[in-house]
Amino acid sequence: MHDDSSALAGKLQPWLARLRKAQPLVHCITNYVTVNDVANLLLACGASPVMADAEEEAAEMAAIAGALLINLGTLNPRTVRSMHLAAASANKHGIPIVLDPVGVGATSFRSSTAQALLQEHNFALIRGNISEIKALVLTGQSAGTTRGVDAQESDLADAVQGRINLARELARRTNSMVVISGAQDVAAAANGPALLCSNGCPAMQAVTGSGCMLSALLAAYAAVSYTAKDNKEDNLRHAALAGLAAMGICGERANTLTEEQQGGNASFRTHLIDSMYRLDSLEDAAKVEVVSE
Amino acid sequence: MHDDSSALAGKLQPWLARLRKAQPLVHCITNYVTVNDVANLLLACGASPVMADAEEEAAEMAAIAGALLINLGTLNPRTVRSMHLAAASANKHGIPIVLDPVGVGATSFRSSTAQALLQEHNFALIRGNISEIKALVLTGQSAGTTRGVDAQESDLADAVQGRINLARELARRTNSMVVISGAQDVAAAANGPALLCSNGCPAMQAVTGSGCMLSALLAAYAAVSYTAKDNKEDNLRHAALAGLAAMGICGERANTLTEEQQGGNASFRTHLIDSMYRLDSLEDAAKVEVVSE
Amino acid sequence: MHDDSSALAGKLQPWLARLRKAQPLVHCITNYVTVNDVANLLLACGASPVMADAEEEAAEMAAIAGALLINLGTLNPRTVRSMHLAAASANKHGIPIVLDPVGVGATSFRSSTAQALLQEHNFALIRGNISEIKALVLTGQSAGTTRGVDAQESDLADAVQGRINLARELARRTNSMVVISGAQDVAAAANGPALLCSNGCPAMQAVTGSGCMLSALLAAYAAVSYTAKDNKEDNLRHAALAGLAAMGICGERANTLTEEQQGGNASFRTHLIDSMYRLDSLEDAAKVEVVSE
Repeated sequence: MHDDSSALAGKLQPWLARLRKAQPLVHCITNYVTVNDVANLLLACGASPVMADAEEEAAEMAAIAGALLINLGTLNPRTVRSMHLAAASANKHGIPIVLDPVGVGATSFRSSTAQALLQEHNFALIRGNISEIKALVLTGQSAGTTRGVDAQESDLADAVQGRINLARELARRTNSMVVISGAQDVAAAANGPALLCSNGCPAMQAVTGSGCMLSALLAAYAAVSYTAKDNKEDNLRHAALAGLAAMGICGERANTLTEEQQGGNASFRTHLIDSMYRLDSLEDAAKVEVVSE
Repeated sequence: MHDDSSALAGKLQPWLARLRKAQPLVHCITNYVTVNDVANLLLACGASPVMADAEEEAAEMAAIAGALLINLGTLNPRTVRSMHLAAASANKHGIPIVLDPVGVGATSFRSSTAQALLQEHNFALIRGNISEIKALVLTGQSAGTTRGVDAQESDLADAVQGRINLARELARRTNSMVVISGAQDVAAAANGPALLCSNGCPAMQAVTGSGCMLSALLAAYAAVSYTAKDNKEDNLRHAALAGLAAMGICGERANTLTEEQQGGNASFRTHLIDSMYRLDSLEDAAKVEVVSE
Repeated sequence: MHDDSSALAGKLQPWLARLRKAQPLVHCITNYVTVNDVANLLLACGASPVMADAEEEAAEMAAIAGALLINLGTLNPRTVRSMHLAAASANKHGIPIVLDPVGVGATSFRSSTAQALLQEHNFALIRGNISEIKALVLTGQSAGTTRGVDAQESDLADAVQGRINLARELARRTNSMVVISGAQDVAAAANGPALLCSNGCPAMQAVTGSGCMLSALLAAYAAVSYTAKDNKEDNLRHAALAGLAAMGICGERANTLTEEQQGGNASFRTHLIDSMYRLDSLEDAAKVEVVSE
């Protein structure tokens, strides 16, 4: 609880090194649109990805993983059953779960699936864009807020404090850390300070999978944060912030390279993953701050 | 009906700008082989992709989309049911549907699925290679014409007029605009002039997904063409031709870049999507012409 | 049986040319994580990929293919049924099948599926990393050896002769050629000399899909080897070694390009596929040898 913004960046760097050393296995039940990018981003950051979405093996695979990622991007009844089996297994074994509620609010199937998952299992972390997190908080009123899988412009105009309040509200209901990603990422748990990360660039919205990759990265960082025995809450908060800063910094570098080479969104994706592969320091480039309670 | 070839290119340019401005949501039920490229190509052209293939949400997602893309690349009974639900919903809401009958004719499952879709729903546009369109027209005799998902060499030798007649035949039966893509793309509706586009390059056949991306692009252009209230048929024809020219021009640019850098088909894919991202003019580069009736 | 190491490289080159000429159709039932890379790698080497995993068409598609690839990466009961249908059809029509037992040993579902496939069908070739091949040989004791889909460090320390013995053991039980890929690839059938290939680079482990792409490439080479009527066993052995050398050489070139451009694992993937697209000679760069019986 004694973070201040100037000291914060120094607390992130060790998590980068710990992740590369631990090489945690991250079990992903994720959409088939961006799954290849998710796998390569996990390899780039030092983790070891495994994708397994059959009911016959979901629980068994989750039990040997360092973290479980559940992403609703292209859900169907079969994979939803596997999500529940994997989540129950992860909870039983004390393995952190990250939820990416892709497109929640756009259809009632996504909304009811997300609500059921949140009700039945404990998630270490939930990451969504502002429209998705709003849809999770405003159940029943949600159908109008999300259009497809991208954040709505009206939602993007919300002030920082509003987004912190929203994250805090969902965090209290779920007992999860909640991350709202955007131009300025917000992270908050039920208690403790809220954190902000201002790294990143608008080009990240022009490539599919930037959100999915971020959630996977946060799962890798969550895996490492859970291996330390004490200060679990502080650890997860700092590790998650390290993940946000890492992704944002890589986005900035990818943007520079893409502009230099007059590329587009496909080049940007390549540079983004490459930058994660080469990332060796967070300290200088991280733009993070604490918002006192 | 008063198009002539010299005036045609000028009619395409406005659709490029309209697409970037409208950012239509394109709901894709598409194969898992090229789905990431389809999503990135849609983002590159200015559209917003959403993939959703569960029966529980297919109709709901289609209802909020600007266009629906149905691609048979890796169909199975579950996704076929979703295709029907989404198509019925799109028809009900006046949302254009594009069909990409990947590999139709190669197996009886693909052929019967394509026929059932065409019988039960109205498609704004059907795009295939010459072997696929032949298989749709020559039902019952089709099993021999298609080998896998690539056009057959014997079919590629067909003269332009033969391809126009074939497109026209399918267009009459289905009341759809029909596009046969190839070295020279052919587009024809039941009535009105046939159109040709000669942009593109052979390298497009060496990368998976060039056909799938083209169909997705045509869905994005169809979405924009449907927002105008009058001249629907002219609008769709011009918007579709704009899509064909856009894809072909980007293919040419990607080919130049790939050759300069001594790359291969993977680089070509990156350059193709990047070129779409940067494309701001069709007028100078489009090679299009009208074939009088 | 009269191979010696110095003469071996000369026997590989013709298979490269034969593959580009024959353009075999390779039917893939493969995971959705790396399927796009598999398709582009197949196109790059000269083959024609088709992905079809529905029970309704698996047998029909396999019957018209030059080879069948079965990859267990993201198996589920529906696709497992399709694997059996396709395999039975391929066996009936004399079409070679390649098995990639991704992550076998990590869960009992993967292990029992792999065992059932091996019991019921004849595979021309099985390719896995050392942990996967161990898991296939040590059925019942396997659950501890595999963690996710990557080879275990303890297994990687096995000496070459140990790996040859392991490959030979599985080859005898299954009557398949067995390839254990790693820093030094080992290939052995039940009889005849074992072969080694030392091409490649460690960076291949940092990109998802390098194993899947290798298995697909071996399926393409197997397709070509089966078109010759005599010396089937020698042909498959040489064609498979050509595939191993081709992949390893492309890995080395991709690594050089990636280092020169200060890229990461995403660039490496692009360069790997591009290198396969441009590969025109194996003779000079292949590092292959025979281990006498």
